[in-house]
Amino acid sequence: MGGGYIGIEVVEAMLRLGKRVRVIELSDRILRTFDSELTDLAEKELVKHGVELNLGEKVEGFIGSERVEAVQTDKGTYPADLVLLSIGVRPATKFLDGSGVALAENGAVIIDREMRTNIKDVYSAGDCAQVYHKVMEENTFIPLGTNANKCGRLAGVNIAGQHNKYVGTLGSAAIKVCDLEMGRTGLSEIDARNLAIDYTTVFVKSADHPGYYPNQTPIWIKLICEKRTRRILGAQAIGNKGAVLRIDIFAVAIHNNMSADELGMTDLVYAPPFAGVWDAVHIACNAVK
Amino acid sequence: MGGGYIGIEVVEAMLRLGKRVRVIELSDRILRTFDSELTDLAEKELVKHGVELNLGEKVEGFIGSERVEAVQTDKGTYPADLVLLSIGVRPATKFLDGSGVALAENGAVIIDREMRTNIKDVYSAGDCAQVYHKVMEENTFIPLGTNANKCGRLAGVNIAGQHNKYVGTLGSAAIKVCDLEMGRTGLSEIDARNLAIDYTTVFVKSADHPGYYPNQTPIWIKLICEKRTRRILGAQAIGNKGAVLRIDIFAVAIHNNMSADELGMTDLVYAPPFAGVWDAVHIACNAVK
Repeated sequence: MGGGYIGIEVVEAMLRLGKRVRVIELSDRILRTFDSELTDLAEKELVKHGVELNLGEKVEGFIGSERVEAVQTDKGTYPADLVLLSIGVRPATKFLDGSGVALAENGAVIIDREMRTNIKDVYSAGDCAQVYHKVMEENTFIPLGTNANKCGRLAGVNIAGQHNKYVGTLGSAAIKVCDLEMGRTGLSEIDARNLAIDYTTVFVKSADHPGYYPNQTPIWIKLICEKRTRRILGAQAIGNKGAVLRIDIFAVAIHNNMSADELGMTDLVYAPPFAGVWDAVHIACNAVK
Repeated sequence: MGGGYIGIEVVEAMLRLGKRVRVIELSDRILRTFDSELTDLAEKELVKHGVELNLGEKVEGFIGSERVEAVQTDKGTYPADLVLLSIGVRPATKFLDGSGVALAENGAVIIDREMRTNIKDVYSAGDCAQVYHKVMEENTFIPLGTNANKCGRLAGVNIAGQHNKYVGTLGSAAIKVCDLEMGRTGLSEIDARNLAIDYTTVFVKSADHPGYYPNQTPIWIKLICEKRTRRILGAQAIGNKGAVLRIDIFAVAIHNNMSADELGMTDLVYAPPFAGVWDAVHIACNAVK
């Protein structure tokens, strides 16, 4: 149950163990921090490896006496030996009720960029707390180990007397889906739409390295850019090789408010085993209208 | 003859063909755009694969009547079926003598960031010309396809009426040396010393991904930073996997004048198959004193 990062990672592990796997997901697609151009490819990859994808389907109950024997949804009943619930993350902050510590609507502790709560000398960091977003320029909730580690270190340093501010999350994340790697950073198209940003997107297929070197594999890159300035707001990539590390290239570019035009001319490495003289990153940037 | 990019690339191809290969290099190490911490590892890798490395040795002549039979150096005589001369690149600008086009000491055409020579309406770009260096903030000579392609495009656009400036090279480059990949961007330690910059360096061993995921491989990263500001001036990486694409992450950071401290807290992706929650890039940055 649930087609997020944890669900899909476990699906992959189950496939390796030779199990038959079904994903039941309430929404109409998996991995919703990615846009549909990428999740379409990820879903195809899972189906190709024998996964049953039940999208837009709601679990209504479990059947079984001693242990689970089947899952009941609004569309059918599916026999099961084991059910994994990977249906989201919620801050476990119930114990703060009545403490005076300010919480967001979802229960996450509200903190500033120094990890300070609204109560003097009380700090919070990690999946229980909000995190400052570099592109949104406001707090959001992204419960990932990346932010938790950095914010935890900052909380420690600041409790010890420093005033170091978190540079901000980009929501950078990656996952392996069978033979594909996927990564994302910055705003998705859905984020940009929700924030009422005037944006433009491209979705470009290129390759991890030039065709004149053996074993070329495809890379698809989606960019979300601010329309007026052509500033890169978000990037997503999927491919067999080198897709995820290229997301880090975009992460640093987005962190620095680079435009697609400037990144499209930045001096990235070229060598036949690794990248074309115009890298997949350049090609995507230079396709932005 | 010659242990630069072309020489070592051909050595690798020769090894694949099952040939016995000897590299005769005048200086005391190969791939001199890298610092010695990295070339030491590359040399070990070549020796491990059976290459004879004759460093600090000067070729004085060839022996043979119909065809080459041996190479004569200041230290010995080596039988050879084929000799490759990969001893450097020089701009073929002899034909410009007397044209009035200004040339640098090595013969490279002097151009501005719009690819304009000193003669009105005459443009030049590529390995025949100088190129503006983003970190040095002045022209230099880096005859690589990366710059040539970008500068060629700019020359075309500017001849057609635009005034687009090259953002500048970083001297980004990569090479595969048997089972190792190597990349570099920005200033080497030697560059920084020659430019009389007050710099600091780190050389850090970490890994491409966490040990709790199979097939972890080592990555060594060297950083050269400006001492006072901790701004990253240059980065070099070597490893079995993911070393070269990480150089592109540094390239974008250097392009944006980032400090090691800021890149050390930037939100890069984490997922066990690809990177640790503190990526090799973070670990190197956070080791800068």
